[in-house]
Amino acid sequence: MTLIEAFKTAREVRLAARSGAFRGSTTGQCDQYIQANLIIVPSKYAKDFRGLCQRNPVSCPLLAESPAPGDPTFPEVAKDCDVRKDAPGYNIYVNGKATQIDVPNIDSLWTEDSVAFLIGCSFSFEGTLATAGLIPRHTELGINVPMYRTKAALMPSGVFGGNMVVSMRPYRGEEVEKVRDLTRPFSRTHGEPVAWGWSAVKALGITDIHTADFGDAPVFREGEVPVFWACGVTPQLSVMSSPDVKGTVIGHAPGKMICLDLKCADILEQQ
Amino acid sequence: MTLIEAFKTAREVRLAARSGAFRGSTTGQCDQYIQANLIIVPSKYAKDFRGLCQRNPVSCPLLAESPAPGDPTFPEVAKDCDVRKDAPGYNIYVNGKATQIDVPNIDSLWTEDSVAFLIGCSFSFEGTLATAGLIPRHTELGINVPMYRTKAALMPSGVFGGNMVVSMRPYRGEEVEKVRDLTRPFSRTHGEPVAWGWSAVKALGITDIHTADFGDAPVFREGEVPVFWACGVTPQLSVMSSPDVKGTVIGHAPGKMICLDLKCADILEQQ
Repeated sequence: MTLIEAFKTAREVRLAARSGAFRGSTTGQCDQYIQANLIIVPSKYAKDFRGLCQRNPVSCPLLAESPAPGDPTFPEVAKDCDVRKDAPGYNIYVNGKATQIDVPNIDSLWTEDSVAFLIGCSFSFEGTLATAGLIPRHTELGINVPMYRTKAALMPSGVFGGNMVVSMRPYRGEEVEKVRDLTRPFSRTHGEPVAWGWSAVKALGITDIHTADFGDAPVFREGEVPVFWACGVTPQLSVMSSPDVKGTVIGHAPGKMICLDLKCADILEQQ
Repeated sequence: MTLIEAFKTAREVRLAARSGAFRGSTTGQCDQYIQANLIIVPSKYAKDFRGLCQRNPVSCPLLAESPAPGDPTFPEVAKDCDVRKDAPGYNIYVNGKATQIDVPNIDSLWTEDSVAFLIGCSFSFEGTLATAGLIPRHTELGINVPMYRTKAALMPSGVFGGNMVVSMRPYRGEEVEKVRDLTRPFSRTHGEPVAWGWSAVKALGITDIHTADFGDAPVFREGEVPVFWACGVTPQLSVMSSPDVKGTVIGHAPGKMICLDLKCADILEQQ
């Protein structure tokens, strides 16, 4: 089995998303590169959102912030990036309610007051897992990773609260320690799992493991257990569950990430 | 009302603890200075413990690590500190079980393999609360802060897992936003509360708010609600709930902190 890989570099993914030619999940794409979750907030919430990331670095590992309100570029991590078009899909929230799902660009919604944040994505370590013979099931099957809301509360920061979202990859019980060891150094892209095993389903407050809240349904094989990582969709759930967050907030469509020029080796923690 | 204050400087507290003259809680002492939780682990667990702090910076905000295994000093944050004697009390854990509670020093247990970590303590912001007219109840009454085990899971790191411990201070509902604002900049000593209000008691999984797991019982007055902060006793609970942590681990006795020469102004986050 190999990763599905149509694009070798992050820039190719960004350009294909920008033109509208690529609207799919970025899982398995440009596997040497870091992928990022996106959240765009009015500038008055930027400080509280920065605090949310500082206080919840496992679910919200902050990779970069746009240089100034109204500037849609990320010159330090993605050459010529235009954050208004470079994700293959976007979700729009107004006063905490999702109003548009998976739109191709946000040109008409970006304002001089918009501040964008990039948050590490667990797709970034999937190449490492695959190389070790632990290919994630959803990349093997060419589908999106299953993601779930949990009842695990975030550490609140100003107007932002809510619960953690997790992504799930099935592995055999005896593989879990190796999976933990391989993903631990990726602290900028969620790092090691937050929970694993069938008992974790209830502990996290997931009501039905077979029905994902975001992404595609999981596919388990005999002897496998769910392994959960914190997920960068968390800020979007936070926006939906924080009544003091008003106005327009924009996120990427879950699974459709901004691909960065950063490579895994650039952010791996020394062990 | 004023803070009970027998000692003006952190060094006076350390010297009094070192001689055995002071065995009490450090709450309200030397209120311009940062106070720290202590945990001492065999060197083989140091990397995983560092990771626990990185992944859980609200409950485990790492202030300093001893310079090398076997060196009981913290030259950067506390002049002439001897971490084996400078807390007013210590708890000892062997293979995850508490074997000695509130002993005056750990001279006989410190080894060439011991690594010590200092973690910010919420006592550090109590002077700021008191100055604003929001004196914590337990300092007003001259007792220890009530602390509780919760069911809120930590982000695991290697051998370390377990749940968060919280400290609790009662405030009137209308005071909570001011309390949040005042403590938010203290991100190195737990920062703003993690939860508040009577509904938070159940959400955190606290079975009886009137019976603290550590420290003294709470004293509520009419119209007050519980306000919970993450607590630096968390690593001790983690050690007790992590079966892979073997050997001797040492913590401070809850409420009996290592007082540092750092002052609040040295660590306050710019807002």
